[in-house]
Amino acid sequence: MEHHFEPVSYYSTFGPHEPALRIEPGDRVVTSTADAGGADRSGETVAPRGNPLTGPFYVEGAEPGDTLVVRLERIYPNRTHGFTSRRIASHLVEPDYVRELPPPPATPEDWRVTWQVDLDAGSATLDDDSLTAPLTVDLRPMLGCIGVAPPRGQAISTATSGPYGGNMDYRGFVAGVTAYFPVFEAGALLFVGDGHAVQGEGEIVGTGIEISMDVEFTVELQKDRQISWPRGENETHIFTAGNARPLDQALQHATTEMLRWLAADYGLDSAAASHLMGQLVEYDVGNVFDPAYTMVCKLAKAVLPARAAP
Amino acid sequence: MEHHFEPVSYYSTFGPHEPALRIEPGDRVVTSTADAGGADRSGETVAPRGNPLTGPFYVEGAEPGDTLVVRLERIYPNRTHGFTSRRIASHLVEPDYVRELPPPPATPEDWRVTWQVDLDAGSATLDDDSLTAPLTVDLRPMLGCIGVAPPRGQAISTATSGPYGGNMDYRGFVAGVTAYFPVFEAGALLFVGDGHAVQGEGEIVGTGIEISMDVEFTVELQKDRQISWPRGENETHIFTAGNARPLDQALQHATTEMLRWLAADYGLDSAAASHLMGQLVEYDVGNVFDPAYTMVCKLAKAVLPARAAP
Amino acid sequence: MEHHFEPVSYYSTFGPHEPALRIEPGDRVVTSTADAGGADRSGETVAPRGNPLTGPFYVEGAEPGDTLVVRLERIYPNRTHGFTSRRIASHLVEPDYVRELPPPPATPEDWRVTWQVDLDAGSATLDDDSLTAPLTVDLRPMLGCIGVAPPRGQAISTATSGPYGGNMDYRGFVAGVTAYFPVFEAGALLFVGDGHAVQGEGEIVGTGIEISMDVEFTVELQKDRQISWPRGENETHIFTAGNARPLDQALQHATTEMLRWLAADYGLDSAAASHLMGQLVEYDVGNVFDPAYTMVCKLAKAVLPARAAP
Amino acid sequence: MEHHFEPVSYYSTFGPHEPALRIEPGDRVVTSTADAGGADRSGETVAPRGNPLTGPFYVEGAEPGDTLVVRLERIYPNRTHGFTSRRIASHLVEPDYVRELPPPPATPEDWRVTWQVDLDAGSATLDDDSLTAPLTVDLRPMLGCIGVAPPRGQAISTATSGPYGGNMDYRGFVAGVTAYFPVFEAGALLFVGDGHAVQGEGEIVGTGIEISMDVEFTVELQKDRQISWPRGENETHIFTAGNARPLDQALQHATTEMLRWLAADYGLDSAAASHLMGQLVEYDVGNVFDPAYTMVCKLAKAVLPARAAP
Repeated sequence: MEHHFEPVSYYSTFGPHEPALRIEPGDRVVTSTADAGGADRSGETVAPRGNPLTGPFYVEGAEPGDTLVVRLERIYPNRTHGFTSRRIASHLVEPDYVRELPPPPATPEDWRVTWQVDLDAGSATLDDDSLTAPLTVDLRPMLGCIGVAPPRGQAISTATSGPYGGNMDYRGFVAGVTAYFPVFEAGALLFVGDGHAVQGEGEIVGTGIEISMDVEFTVELQKDRQISWPRGENETHIFTAGNARPLDQALQHATTEMLRWLAADYGLDSAAASHLMGQLVEYDVGNVFDPAYTMVCKLAKAVLPARAAP
Repeated sequence: MEHHFEPVSYYSTFGPHEPALRIEPGDRVVTSTADAGGADRSGETVAPRGNPLTGPFYVEGAEPGDTLVVRLERIYPNRTHGFTSRRIASHLVEPDYVRELPPPPATPEDWRVTWQVDLDAGSATLDDDSLTAPLTVDLRPMLGCIGVAPPRGQAISTATSGPYGGNMDYRGFVAGVTAYFPVFEAGALLFVGDGHAVQGEGEIVGTGIEISMDVEFTVELQKDRQISWPRGENETHIFTAGNARPLDQALQHATTEMLRWLAADYGLDSAAASHLMGQLVEYDVGNVFDPAYTMVCKLAKAVLPARAAP
Repeated sequence: MEHHFEPVSYYSTFGPHEPALRIEPGDRVVTSTADAGGADRSGETVAPRGNPLTGPFYVEGAEPGDTLVVRLERIYPNRTHGFTSRRIASHLVEPDYVRELPPPPATPEDWRVTWQVDLDAGSATLDDDSLTAPLTVDLRPMLGCIGVAPPRGQAISTATSGPYGGNMDYRGFVAGVTAYFPVFEAGALLFVGDGHAVQGEGEIVGTGIEISMDVEFTVELQKDRQISWPRGENETHIFTAGNARPLDQALQHATTEMLRWLAADYGLDSAAASHLMGQLVEYDVGNVFDPAYTMVCKLAKAVLPARAAP
Repeated sequence: MEHHFEPVSYYSTFGPHEPALRIEPGDRVVTSTADAGGADRSGETVAPRGNPLTGPFYVEGAEPGDTLVVRLERIYPNRTHGFTSRRIASHLVEPDYVRELPPPPATPEDWRVTWQVDLDAGSATLDDDSLTAPLTVDLRPMLGCIGVAPPRGQAISTATSGPYGGNMDYRGFVAGVTAYFPVFEAGALLFVGDGHAVQGEGEIVGTGIEISMDVEFTVELQKDRQISWPRGENETHIFTAGNARPLDQALQHATTEMLRWLAADYGLDSAAASHLMGQLVEYDVGNVFDPAYTMVCKLAKAVLPARAAP
């Protein structure tokens, strides 16, 4: 079944909130997200600033100990302007270099520069004269926020992330990806938000090109299949995401989750997995801006043995 | 001038050692490296285990405050077998998962598995039955160790790295790359070693496919040009390497060094650089195995303005 | 006014929960806490395991931007047995040493060893034969959990901590201390729990001697006085607590909060503060077990200039 | 035998340098150190800035695999003025707070403020008007640098530290302490330097009160006794020092070394050690200024069982 869902309220935490829509495994959802600043497709402010979330979507039958599968089918800007911050975050440069960065502006709005987005051409152009030549970049639309309700009845700010997903700001969550999340609450309670038309690796200025999005996805459920951290796959790779500080710990989580995946679905013990990962593993930095950093561990499907059916 | 240099002794530290060969800026060197275990092209052990270095090459005219330029022209295995370790390092998995890894073997030799290298086909095949099917991977030959003598008369183990380069284990130091190093000692004192036929990102098992290499490079000198961390460029990207723990600090160094480069050579102030890097920066993990981790910050040349002559 | 409050329900998150009791600034509260495992003074399980909290106490007039003052007047065990875990946490030893630790037991209960607590003598004795001689230690009763509702409507697990306080497991939160917390929600919503009869620095086994407590405190309010992190003072010292990972970041927060305090209340600019702190600062490790570590920055009152009245 | 040794040259690295004096186990050495800036008791500059070292002292019979024992018998300033830096290091405050610190001065000398040291009264007084009242503090003389030649023929800057000791800047290395170091080179090659008349925990301004010192110590040797990190003991405590970044890793090393010590000399298995350390361990921050941080793990002798010889 396909649901067309127009959000009327938004959440600023991943938490056990009242379901916005109840759906069945196999259902498809066509919806939209406001931008990180709370503005929707019309540019109107519909929610307070800070990654307002669309959802939660209650998936019938989902229970703690299951895995929620989310096939991201379309993620595309639905308006023609986005914004970015103008300053690399202080914590991402050498401490003595902080003085070389421009001083923090008085209000969040002063941080913003606007980008014009050409939806047909699939590009964004910086509307600012700080660069000598105009800067036009190809769109690479992604979701900064995707995840489910965390464990123990927690409600956690959309600024950060954890085993439940959250504000991972990983530019790999694009259309074509299938994402997996551990279920901690009945119904899983899926949320999406914080669309970026483009984002550099690490989200080092604290924003991508923040923009409202059209989002379409299909959910499935894997019963009695417990994963520890978000996972995903696209045409070429499988990947796992670890969310923590420092980046070293995020990498530990992602690497361990990949070992668990290789053992459970590909029948590789830790020696076999070490051979494969040792010479072929890849890592992507998700974000190094948010309270929890995100590191992604990847393996090319081409080098993997056949996968057991879950 | 082209020098053919056959190493007769090797060093286990980056330090102010007696020059092995004196060369002029513009000179080309054709040489070779022993593998990390100290074996050369014949498989004979010619140096103690632990990344023995070829060099140092004394570059006439190089003085502290200059930048040494090294054009890597050829890096290719010169024998048909290499070895890897069989175990992901304990510090790269979740602490409670360490028990799931195989126990550390009694001797370093027990860690080793052999790979057969087909020099013509450009591939390596794992000689081990822990995987159900044979594993063959494309060669991607690189130098784990490259750098100069560190500051203050230090002699630092080839296990680690710093502003002078060292054991960065970054799989981006391949043929076709031009690398830049700050000069701390008269003559710069360039060393190379620790060739890997293939290596996964991060060197998470503590080895690539360790093998002896033929190495060819040309040096140049940029007088009175001070850089803070190793830099490099290939056809498509410029990059900077930061070496430290935790990975967060390595990332700070690499990011800051990129900002310095963009300011000095591309005329970009920190606001302009923030726009460019914020939406277009990429990161590679060099290594997360060694005492100092390596993080690499990259920008595509296609998005950069014209570079001022150095 | 003095309130005698017997908890009937407990919370497993610091969050914007229904007030358990409404009190006025200046009021005194006499209450009790269950132990970390959910057992009360009778040893009966009254709440699920995991630091169940007593509260929240709604302080009339408290609004975001104020500071809540909590004078801890009595914290003392109210039964004669407590428990500890039997194993240093894996993440607190060198990764290759994890195998030397005893294997994790099957159930949380298997981790437990019992201590007999002599309430009159003020000591606890280990009821276990793993040490050759009996181990008796002096009581040093403290609260592992103390804090207020976090910002943005969050509800955060009692496993961790943040600017709002939380599960800091700092053995400095003892009777005689005045603690300060930033107010993020109307009424502040103060919680207490997780009493430890004794605890080593860092809480490296993941528990102190876990026990139910009698707790008595008085609250005050500082209107329009914004602090960034928990603060405290006892007879001899003022202190600030930073909660984050890695420990380095916790230390940054605590150190910065001390600089803010010295500037605001003691009239010390950053040069003056640097002289004082540079030669006289002390640090305590709060915890290095929980998701957020706690580092405490301390200064002796004897070396401070007169404090301006807040 | 007692040696009176007046240094004539100084080293800026811990390394395999030419012995300055050869001594036997049991010998006593009466010597002195220059201050961190290279000035001796007369205030004259006798060595370049940066923790110049006195030594190395070659201990006859010491071989790799042994432990060097150093009884610190006297450490006391030998002149009446010292200096400190005037600014907390940028990396020890929240990154956005760096701008609130005074800007870095143009030259290292501009960082300095002078303290008058009263050798008879045992106090130091700040010679600066940035504080409203004069600041006088009790002397607590210590050695910032103490250690032996590192492994693998390395020569490592006196800015940092490692398993061999080095610039730990731990204010626990005072007269009355017995320190233990692993031996990596024949003769051990002991160095001392970087005396501080007083130092705050962490050395957060990058200096203690830097001053030249009279130093007296006696050495012993423990043959075939291998330790992994520096250890020490005073009248009340035994302690271990871990040197690394981040502070978390330094803490892992120190904690693990304490476990090794408790197992080897006190017969405590890891469960017994967990009980003892879990409720009674203490930590001191050595330094958080240098490239490697230092964390110290301590246990009171009063709670330890009898120690096996040695």
